[in-house]
Amino acid sequence: MEDILHHQSSQFDEELGRLRSDVLRMGGLVENQVATAIEAYGACDPRAIEETIARDQDINALEKQIDDESAQLIARRQPTAVDLRLVFGIIKIVTDLERIGDEAKKIAKGVRRICDAGSNPTQFAPSIRQLAKAVMIMTRESLDAFARLDSALAQKVIVDDDGVDAEYKEILHRLVTDMIDDNTTIGLAMDIIWIARAVERIGDHAKNVAEHVIFIVDGRDVRHNAYQID
Amino acid sequence: MEDILHHQSSQFDEELGRLRSDVLRMGGLVENQVATAIEAYGACDPRAIEETIARDQDINALEKQIDDESAQLIARRQPTAVDLRLVFGIIKIVTDLERIGDEAKKIAKGVRRICDAGSNPTQFAPSIRQLAKAVMIMTRESLDAFARLDSALAQKVIVDDDGVDAEYKEILHRLVTDMIDDNTTIGLAMDIIWIARAVERIGDHAKNVAEHVIFIVDGRDVRHNAYQID
Repeated sequence: MEDILHHQSSQFDEELGRLRSDVLRMGGLVENQVATAIEAYGACDPRAIEETIARDQDINALEKQIDDESAQLIARRQPTAVDLRLVFGIIKIVTDLERIGDEAKKIAKGVRRICDAGSNPTQFAPSIRQLAKAVMIMTRESLDAFARLDSALAQKVIVDDDGVDAEYKEILHRLVTDMIDDNTTIGLAMDIIWIARAVERIGDHAKNVAEHVIFIVDGRDVRHNAYQID
Repeated sequence: MEDILHHQSSQFDEELGRLRSDVLRMGGLVENQVATAIEAYGACDPRAIEETIARDQDINALEKQIDDESAQLIARRQPTAVDLRLVFGIIKIVTDLERIGDEAKKIAKGVRRICDAGSNPTQFAPSIRQLAKAVMIMTRESLDAFARLDSALAQKVIVDDDGVDAEYKEILHRLVTDMIDDNTTIGLAMDIIWIARAVERIGDHAKNVAEHVIFIVDGRDVRHNAYQID
């Protein structure tokens, strides 16, 4: 009897482990998406643009797969306490990862619009790249925090989002000022605003992932406690 | 033995019923939030603005509570098949309801910015109100679809989102054209753009709720199939 239990338990561990790996694989794809979208920005590289848009489907498919695996695991294994919290956290995490993929796709579409109009947003490229770098670090660290179940690292990601929000507001302010100074740039400025907005949203989702990690590790629900951008 | 089982089962039904009622209660609060935020728009009613912003906390608290109840129900009752699908669907639905609350708060803050600047967006008020009416109907119907587990009504909500997206794009186009014509209106136009954007996002979340209802009823995962606005 004990042997069976032990066997069942290690099979269960194996299944939970696979689920965690799948989340990390999805995270890797999503990170790649954001990086490719940002590379496309400034370079007007049509291959990078189309690749980012097309690959969003893989991320969506992976979200569905992980949701299915989670449901099956709960039904078959009936996990309790900490394991159930892990599966719950995973269901929430994949929702945010999928939305990061959506934002990457929006960035790529924004870049395509700019390039199709014959513009090249060199002026704002350094600011956008810097903002993107910050949210990519947040995304990376939120996934590391999940991999290692490290709530201190997750806490750092939550704090870092404040800096991203401040930087985003500053970019927005400059773009609106530019529009007022020179109304021939309004079309381009609006496209850059949507891109900056999408980058900023990626930071929000990375922060959400970090909050789910803290829930998994500590059982504490820290959502809605911190500063939210409006 | 059978009696005990029966008793357990009706207790379980009661718990599931309570969970569903809580989701509907949260939905009602969220609907109210959107309505109050839109009322504030145009009227510059400071009470409606502050009420919308303050009440977002109740919605956040309700999300946490429903998440907790769901986790406890799974741990205690170990539901399978259709019941588990319902609980899974609920976990996803409350995430979208909470985000609708966030968007309502963003609308209220946008209105506050406009009114604090001494402006009154009468010119765009009819368009925003019409867009808001459409997404409020979508929200209402997605909740009705959940209450009655009516996948046909959920399907209608998904289709309706295309109309909202088209209407939003038209408003955006007009606002950008206005900015180009008269660059003294840029600040106000940007505030209205963020409000229109928030209204459009409410439609997206209502559509998500409808997709979760179809998943609950039919076991079909219809996410990522339809047209997505960028």
